[in-house]
Amino acid sequence: MTERVREILSWYESDNPGTLSKLASILNHGKLGGTGRMVILPVDQGFEHGPARSFAPNPPAYDPRYHFELAIAAGCNAYAAPLGFLEAGARTYAGQLPLILKVNDHDVLNDEKDPNQALTSTVDDALRLGCGAVGFTIYPGSEHRLEMYQEIRDFAEEAKRNGLAVVIWSYPRGSSLSKKGETAIDVCGYAAHIAAQLGAHIIKVKLPTREIEQEEARKIYEKEKIPIGTLAERVRHVVQCAFGGRRIVIFSGGPAETDETLLQEVRGIREGGGFGSIIGRNSFQRRRGDALKLLDEIMTIYRS
Amino acid sequence: MTERVREILSWYESDNPGTLSKLASILNHGKLGGTGRMVILPVDQGFEHGPARSFAPNPPAYDPRYHFELAIAAGCNAYAAPLGFLEAGARTYAGQLPLILKVNDHDVLNDEKDPNQALTSTVDDALRLGCGAVGFTIYPGSEHRLEMYQEIRDFAEEAKRNGLAVVIWSYPRGSSLSKKGETAIDVCGYAAHIAAQLGAHIIKVKLPTREIEQEEARKIYEKEKIPIGTLAERVRHVVQCAFGGRRIVIFSGGPAETDETLLQEVRGIREGGGFGSIIGRNSFQRRRGDALKLLDEIMTIYRS
Amino acid sequence: MTERVREILSWYESDNPGTLSKLASILNHGKLGGTGRMVILPVDQGFEHGPARSFAPNPPAYDPRYHFELAIAAGCNAYAAPLGFLEAGARTYAGQLPLILKVNDHDVLNDEKDPNQALTSTVDDALRLGCGAVGFTIYPGSEHRLEMYQEIRDFAEEAKRNGLAVVIWSYPRGSSLSKKGETAIDVCGYAAHIAAQLGAHIIKVKLPTREIEQEEARKIYEKEKIPIGTLAERVRHVVQCAFGGRRIVIFSGGPAETDETLLQEVRGIREGGGFGSIIGRNSFQRRRGDALKLLDEIMTIYRS
Amino acid sequence: MTERVREILSWYESDNPGTLSKLASILNHGKLGGTGRMVILPVDQGFEHGPARSFAPNPPAYDPRYHFELAIAAGCNAYAAPLGFLEAGARTYAGQLPLILKVNDHDVLNDEKDPNQALTSTVDDALRLGCGAVGFTIYPGSEHRLEMYQEIRDFAEEAKRNGLAVVIWSYPRGSSLSKKGETAIDVCGYAAHIAAQLGAHIIKVKLPTREIEQEEARKIYEKEKIPIGTLAERVRHVVQCAFGGRRIVIFSGGPAETDETLLQEVRGIREGGGFGSIIGRNSFQRRRGDALKLLDEIMTIYRS
Amino acid sequence: MTERVREILSWYESDNPGTLSKLASILNHGKLGGTGRMVILPVDQGFEHGPARSFAPNPPAYDPRYHFELAIAAGCNAYAAPLGFLEAGARTYAGQLPLILKVNDHDVLNDEKDPNQALTSTVDDALRLGCGAVGFTIYPGSEHRLEMYQEIRDFAEEAKRNGLAVVIWSYPRGSSLSKKGETAIDVCGYAAHIAAQLGAHIIKVKLPTREIEQEEARKIYEKEKIPIGTLAERVRHVVQCAFGGRRIVIFSGGPAETDETLLQEVRGIREGGGFGSIIGRNSFQRRRGDALKLLDEIMTIYRS
Repeated sequence: MTERVREILSWYESDNPGTLSKLASILNHGKLGGTGRMVILPVDQGFEHGPARSFAPNPPAYDPRYHFELAIAAGCNAYAAPLGFLEAGARTYAGQLPLILKVNDHDVLNDEKDPNQALTSTVDDALRLGCGAVGFTIYPGSEHRLEMYQEIRDFAEEAKRNGLAVVIWSYPRGSSLSKKGETAIDVCGYAAHIAAQLGAHIIKVKLPTREIEQEEARKIYEKEKIPIGTLAERVRHVVQCAFGGRRIVIFSGGPAETDETLLQEVRGIREGGGFGSIIGRNSFQRRRGDALKLLDEIMTIYRS
Repeated sequence: MTERVREILSWYESDNPGTLSKLASILNHGKLGGTGRMVILPVDQGFEHGPARSFAPNPPAYDPRYHFELAIAAGCNAYAAPLGFLEAGARTYAGQLPLILKVNDHDVLNDEKDPNQALTSTVDDALRLGCGAVGFTIYPGSEHRLEMYQEIRDFAEEAKRNGLAVVIWSYPRGSSLSKKGETAIDVCGYAAHIAAQLGAHIIKVKLPTREIEQEEARKIYEKEKIPIGTLAERVRHVVQCAFGGRRIVIFSGGPAETDETLLQEVRGIREGGGFGSIIGRNSFQRRRGDALKLLDEIMTIYRS
Repeated sequence: MTERVREILSWYESDNPGTLSKLASILNHGKLGGTGRMVILPVDQGFEHGPARSFAPNPPAYDPRYHFELAIAAGCNAYAAPLGFLEAGARTYAGQLPLILKVNDHDVLNDEKDPNQALTSTVDDALRLGCGAVGFTIYPGSEHRLEMYQEIRDFAEEAKRNGLAVVIWSYPRGSSLSKKGETAIDVCGYAAHIAAQLGAHIIKVKLPTREIEQEEARKIYEKEKIPIGTLAERVRHVVQCAFGGRRIVIFSGGPAETDETLLQEVRGIREGGGFGSIIGRNSFQRRRGDALKLLDEIMTIYRS
Repeated sequence: MTERVREILSWYESDNPGTLSKLASILNHGKLGGTGRMVILPVDQGFEHGPARSFAPNPPAYDPRYHFELAIAAGCNAYAAPLGFLEAGARTYAGQLPLILKVNDHDVLNDEKDPNQALTSTVDDALRLGCGAVGFTIYPGSEHRLEMYQEIRDFAEEAKRNGLAVVIWSYPRGSSLSKKGETAIDVCGYAAHIAAQLGAHIIKVKLPTREIEQEEARKIYEKEKIPIGTLAERVRHVVQCAFGGRRIVIFSGGPAETDETLLQEVRGIREGGGFGSIIGRNSFQRRRGDALKLLDEIMTIYRS
Repeated sequence: MTERVREILSWYESDNPGTLSKLASILNHGKLGGTGRMVILPVDQGFEHGPARSFAPNPPAYDPRYHFELAIAAGCNAYAAPLGFLEAGARTYAGQLPLILKVNDHDVLNDEKDPNQALTSTVDDALRLGCGAVGFTIYPGSEHRLEMYQEIRDFAEEAKRNGLAVVIWSYPRGSSLSKKGETAIDVCGYAAHIAAQLGAHIIKVKLPTREIEQEEARKIYEKEKIPIGTLAERVRHVVQCAFGGRRIVIFSGGPAETDETLLQEVRGIREGGGFGSIIGRNSFQRRRGDALKLLDEIMTIYRS
């Protein structure tokens, strides 16, 4: 148990030892184990965007076992997926890496301006499958956001009582936000803060841009001269928004960019004090060897 | 226990032996027993479309016993129906064939653009009636789809805990889809994937056409040159969308076509690696002898 | 136990001794302990307005521990915050001051004309964190107000059964009110009364202006010559509206004013028989030393 | 919050903040508040020995309010009693001192050689009455002891989950023990250890004598030369038996002795590192003024 | 994941992936991780025999933290203890080694000829403390044995449903057995089989002697010439009695012997195909350095 992991665990002081042991198992697993940084493999895109859009670029990825094996081979800290994908490998890979059950999901066969999510699995599912955490998506900005916040309430209380950790994907979307606003720095920081207040142990947000979406927020960013010029500065600000850095915040970059862009982003996350990355499409949509190479490069940056 | 059935059961590795034994009983029953293929008789059309539309073409089919007897005589793998129909024969035919309790239903007395389903029976009902599985319908594309996904959550968890199998009818419908889109290849594959992620053991979808409904999906189908020209190719793609072929996917054709068209479709399903058919109106809306003959021809194709 | 506290507790005659002991612990804590007056530190602005708008003016306030320490150092009667903020310090500061779990929340990433709140924590959370009370916000005037009233129903019943006190933030807002109307004297008094009728033990409203919003109300204010000319008179009227003074009503002033304005308001509250203040942004958005000085001045007025 | 109280709380690391805040409130209340020592007033003798034997020596003590007032006036850390006694004063004295609900009881109308206890109140009772802790008696040595241990199981889990502390009176009695053995040093240490293993936060045992009851134990006491010659040494040993001093252990002396004997015992407890006393009959069976004087002398010793 | 661990896990085919992942975590932890052998540190002797008899030979062991640290430093596969001992360190050592909650206990203050055990903790406790398994003691041969078997029933079902593993200490004792009979080879094998039939994943028995206790058994041992002459042969027989070697069986030796005797026993267990040792008194009743040395020697034998 490294000093850094011990320090991170100390932030979650109201959680029971069961939940702390699950957080520890994620922080201590894989190539980044013990560093306080993490790279998580999430594969919910099949549900969220459809299977062909997700897996046709690399057809072995249609098979649920592929992702377990990729996450293990790459040395990721954890693998996150919906019920079906986890059921399809949880026995074969039992005890080989921490699992995060993505407990709500959304599809784009009806792609509303104000999206919502459906709860698709239970705390009992997470326990019988041996998961260490449950994961929710919320859409701050959607007119259905309050429903999502409220669904987390009972679910997370039950999860924590049973010694599980809680991960929240906080993705601003909805009719009240501009497209650019979804990743604006003020919105990103706000999204991280909401997830923290809802009781998340690990918070996932998108990388923020220099945009400011809310006029009321702009005033304060300008008045207080909050530095948001570089990616590292913006990451630092988002981490600060999540309880002054006392919550684990990790970042996703979205779909295919050039690898160099992606690695630059990782360097920015690291420099800004971010806790790591969640790398979905950039890992499972390329050939296995290429994915392992990229994930290794990412982890090398985080270890440095 | 044939090697093929053993292989299929191995895919459901997180389920308990009770659920596996129910799946095995469906896979091993009837004329296709042991082949890994299946033909299921579903009779929920009375509820879904009204009794006269369903049974007037063959009045003996008003009697619930008719369908039990037909399924048994034809050597189907299982018989699926709503609560009332099963209650009306479960004692007489106890132990004679696997039963699937259709636990949600919809009628067309109010045929909304965005349809929903009502839960109409329980896991306890399925157990007291001796059913091997419970069946849900979901309507991806409907604005109520998230409610349906969420209802499956607790229901399926309870069903599996009690050693039952779960069948999902995944029928895209709703205001966000065009009429043609409901059976478009991208939508069909997506619908199969959603059902798999929700934890279905057996997935039922409609036969897909060459259409592509979603623009975002079209890009990838074209870029990756996914073969969808023949029915067999489309079936193969849909099966792939359901966990790379590691879930049982069966197909329905919808209302009356010519028998030869229907048999051609069955040949396509078989060639494309589909697991079988669900034959409702084409069996119980003709005279018993004709139905038995057609079902025998279908099973002969699957056995070949 | 002072006579005044004893008197105040006597008003809550249908509550069980557990709830009374929690109310007593709030009334007896801190510099105003035993006076029957109270100053509460609330920090839900991070959720309600966003973290940068809330904490950038005084960056140490991003850290949840800051607020516990500020409330303790200032001698506040209680500290109120959402789940995440309380979880982040409840163990370190266990037993050091009464905590109020703010159990519903709202954000402004989708700032509807008719706002609602999401329940974000449970009675079980309040008990495991050692809170003395739970706090709700309601928006009388919003078209969603009835939902909020109704959510309080079950929640407050469970809270009281388990020996907790109930605080209601009653903030008129919504499409049916003018901006000025939100703090009109008739609306303010009405808001306090609704909170009292919903079973609140402590009611928080905004300081009322001389405005009258509702025409039906105006008639009676004028006919009965209800004195509302001075702030003290208006406070007295609002307190009267809450069961003739037999419920604890406290006041908030909103964002940054000059300190002298604020202290004048406190004098008015005190003179009008108000029970105290809830001081959020005016305390944590300035430097710690300045905040402690201001809070001390406020408490000195209430003690005098 | 003194350093000593902070240290003591740190031993209870698996408890939630709610339970810690209740422990803190007991440790911080009354004349010994903050010292890490405590004096508790227990009045369950009416149930255990009969009312005349308990209260006739000082008839005002028949009235349940007498004991609340005595504990408050004396500055005790807490008052412990069965359901009826607490119900009879919990409203009047709400918030004035920590209450411990004695949740099981025994009477001597049938004084079995192997006594048992009846559960007579619930966690819900403790919450509605505003108690900070629940208290159990166990009789190690009784042939019914396993039943008592088992009853604590669900009760204590529920109490802790709801943020209450757990006190265990561990009183060896039963056919397998000699009368002298009930307070033998080996038996006393064993009784304290059992209570700690059952999850008690505060353990109450009788003052141990120099006797050794169990032959198997005698060998080790002699071989290891465990010092048990003075009362302070014996107290030190019993405290060590309760997790090496990391659980609060308090002592009772039983019925009327001379005051000087009692004060000598208190000095021994203090010198041996005991955490305090539970003073029942020696306080309420004498006149109020005498009781207050004695309790003050006891607390003065603990403070010194 | 080694082949051997994979093979062992395959024996528990009706358990869910959650339980398998906990078994895997025990099999993969510490110096014997991956070998299929295990050494577990159990510390329930304080409860079972009294604290002085248990810890006076090595006083640091009174402190619950000592045992966590010893098990971690020695590289044991898991640490097993009752509720109180685990509560006293589960947060500090969260995630550092697998924990087994000993959920029933017995003391010798009433040392009946036919002993029983009290359930002293719950599945909820195991989950909140982050344990990987729950542990029961049964006393085959006691007239209360059927009660103990029955208590396991509900408890183990709930534990397995929640993804925990089940360990059974099977210790024949009671009025129907001679003292020698408690470790007779026929009784030992029988005890292991009963634990396996009750659904244990890991079975702990005492090392068997050459004695045969039951006359009916003697006939078959003699007729079939079951080899029981050497310790290795007897271990092999006991392992065979537990489902032909398809359950993990580990052995305890009891109190202080010479170290060489103990290491000889370990060699015998290893040679006979036993899965490991549970080393309590021989580890924590000597000085830490000596204990680490002995445990290292034991593990070296198992690794060879």
